[in-house]
Amino acid sequence: MDKIRIGIVGYGNIGRGVERAIARNEDMELKGVFTRRDPDSVHIETEGVAVRKIEDMASVKGEIDVMVLCGGSATDLPVMGPEIAADFNTIDSFDTHARIPAYFESVDTAARKGGNVSIISVGWDPGMFSLNRLYAEAILPQGSTYTFWGKGVSQGHSDAIRRVEGVKNGIQYTVPIEAAVDRVRSGDAPALTTREKHLRECYVVPEEGADLAKIEKAIKEMPNYFDEYDTTVTFITEEELKRQHSKMPHGGFVIRSGETGQEGNKHIIEYSLKLDSNPEFTASVLICYARAAFRLAKKGESGARSVYDIAPGLLSMKSGEELRAQML
Amino acid sequence: MDKIRIGIVGYGNIGRGVERAIARNEDMELKGVFTRRDPDSVHIETEGVAVRKIEDMASVKGEIDVMVLCGGSATDLPVMGPEIAADFNTIDSFDTHARIPAYFESVDTAARKGGNVSIISVGWDPGMFSLNRLYAEAILPQGSTYTFWGKGVSQGHSDAIRRVEGVKNGIQYTVPIEAAVDRVRSGDAPALTTREKHLRECYVVPEEGADLAKIEKAIKEMPNYFDEYDTTVTFITEEELKRQHSKMPHGGFVIRSGETGQEGNKHIIEYSLKLDSNPEFTASVLICYARAAFRLAKKGESGARSVYDIAPGLLSMKSGEELRAQML
Repeated sequence: MDKIRIGIVGYGNIGRGVERAIARNEDMELKGVFTRRDPDSVHIETEGVAVRKIEDMASVKGEIDVMVLCGGSATDLPVMGPEIAADFNTIDSFDTHARIPAYFESVDTAARKGGNVSIISVGWDPGMFSLNRLYAEAILPQGSTYTFWGKGVSQGHSDAIRRVEGVKNGIQYTVPIEAAVDRVRSGDAPALTTREKHLRECYVVPEEGADLAKIEKAIKEMPNYFDEYDTTVTFITEEELKRQHSKMPHGGFVIRSGETGQEGNKHIIEYSLKLDSNPEFTASVLICYARAAFRLAKKGESGARSVYDIAPGLLSMKSGEELRAQML
Repeated sequence: MDKIRIGIVGYGNIGRGVERAIARNEDMELKGVFTRRDPDSVHIETEGVAVRKIEDMASVKGEIDVMVLCGGSATDLPVMGPEIAADFNTIDSFDTHARIPAYFESVDTAARKGGNVSIISVGWDPGMFSLNRLYAEAILPQGSTYTFWGKGVSQGHSDAIRRVEGVKNGIQYTVPIEAAVDRVRSGDAPALTTREKHLRECYVVPEEGADLAKIEKAIKEMPNYFDEYDTTVTFITEEELKRQHSKMPHGGFVIRSGETGQEGNKHIIEYSLKLDSNPEFTASVLICYARAAFRLAKKGESGARSVYDIAPGLLSMKSGEELRAQML
C-alpha cells in the first residue's frame, strides 16, 4: 500500500514532533518540510527529505497528501491556513478559542474551492478535550463540565514573565488545585472561581542586581495573566532553569458530573492526560487526524472540518472489520 | 421543531433507563413501548404512551423514528436486531464481544434492505470504552491499553452464583485492584494476569440449613467465572441484600500508556466512569446515539454502524456552528 505523504509547514517544537510521529506510524512518510527560515539553516532528523522555502510549496502540489501546519495561531495560521488549504489537505492546531468560528469559515471557503479537506483546531485542547466535553455533555445533558490544565508549562505566561523588567529568563507552570479537582470528582458540582481552580508557579532568572521584590510584585499583579490567581515566584539561576525546567510536560482533566433518572443518580465521566512532552503529544494527535483528512479527501469530500465532524474509525490504521473484531 | 420519536423494545432496567433519558432530552419523545409480556402487566412512567405487544410493531411503521432495542445479547438481539432493522432505525447495546462481527453483518444486511440505520453495541463497554481504546491507540501507536471494570455489579456473575446449590439469592461485584491501576497509571506497562487486575466480591443469601463451606467452595472454584480470580464470599440475609445491594453502580477505567519521539517520552491517557446506575447511564448513551441514527437516516444513509462510524457532533443537540463556538 502507498504511504500517506505528509508535509510539515513550520519546523519548531510541534513540527519536530510531527516528524517524530510520522516515524512511529508505518502508513505515513515525510515528503517535505517547509520553512520561512533559510532552508540550509534547518536541520531535520529524517534523511533524504528536502527542506524548502514556504514560497516553493506550489511546486510540490500533487506530491504531498496532507500538509500539517505547525505555525502559531496569533498571526501565522489566520493567513497560512486558508492559503495552503486552497492547494492541499491540511491539519492545524489553531487554538485561539474565540476566533475559531471565523477561522473555520475562511479555511472552509478556501478548501472547498480547492477540493481539499482541512481539519482545524486539532490537538488536545482544542482537540481531545473538546471531544470529551462533547461526548460527556451529549450523554449527560444535565450536569456540569470542568476543565483543569496542568501541571504544565504555559508558553503565553512564560513569555509574559520574560517581558517583566529585570527578568532575564523564566518559565511558568499552570497547576490544577487538587482540592478543587477532588470536589468536582465527588460530583457535588461546585461553583469554582478562577483562583480556586489553578495555581501559577513561576521560576524566574533575574538579571544581575535586579530588584527581586519589584519583579515578584510585577508578576503577581499582572492583569489577565496572574492577578486572578495565587501565584508563586521562585528565583533560580540560569543553570537551574536549564537543568530542571527544559522539558515540556503538560496534561489536565475534563470532568463532567451529571445526573440521570427520576432520583437523580449521579455519574462522573473523567478524561485525563499526563504528558511528558506537550509538543510530541499534540503532534501525535495531528498525525492521526492527517490520516482522516486523507481518507475523506479520497472519498471526494472537501471543506473545513473540526474533530467533531470526524468519525473515530477514520483515525485508526485498522479497517472497520478489524476494529469491530478487536477493539469494540 | 419536530421531536425525535423513540420506541422502546423490552421494558427491563435498560428500557426504563431509556424512558428516563428521553425525559431529559428535550428534542425527543417516547412514542411507544413494545414488550413480549402481557402489555396490561407493564406499567411505564410516561403518561399517554401505549404499551404494545412486540408483534404489533409493524402497525406503527412510519410513526417511530428510532427503536431502542433493550433485549439481551444472548438470545434476544441476534433474532430481534435484524428483524426490527428491516423496518426501523435501531440502536442496541449488543455486548457479546466475540459475536459482534457476525451480528453486525446480519443487522447490516437487514438495515440496508429496509433503508434504515442501525447502530450496534452502544453503551459504555462496548461503547464509550471502545471509543477511548481506539482514540488512545490511534494517537499513541506504541503503547499498551488496559481496561479495568468496577467497582460494579456483574449480572452474569450474579446469575452464576444464584445457580449454585443451596444459594437462595446473591450478587457479585467486580472490583479493580487499585495497586494494578496505579502501576498502569505510572506508565510502566506491566504484564498483568487476570488475578492481578480484578477481585470478585460475592454476597450470598444461603437457603436455610445449607452447607456454607460447600457453597463457598463451589463459587470460588467455578470455572470461567471465578477460578481465575481472588474471590470473597460473604453470607448475608435476604433483608441485608435488599437494603445494601439493590443499587446498580458500576464504572471502570480505560488507560493507555504509550511513548513518542526519539527519547521515548511517556504519556498516559485515562478515561474513567463512576456510575450510580449502570442501566440509566447505558440508556443515556443509547439515547444520544439514537439522535445520530435519526440524522444519518435523514441524510439517506442506511446499514449497520458502530460507535466508530459516528462523528461525535451527531450526538449533540447543538449545531456544528454552536459546537465550534462554544465547546471546541
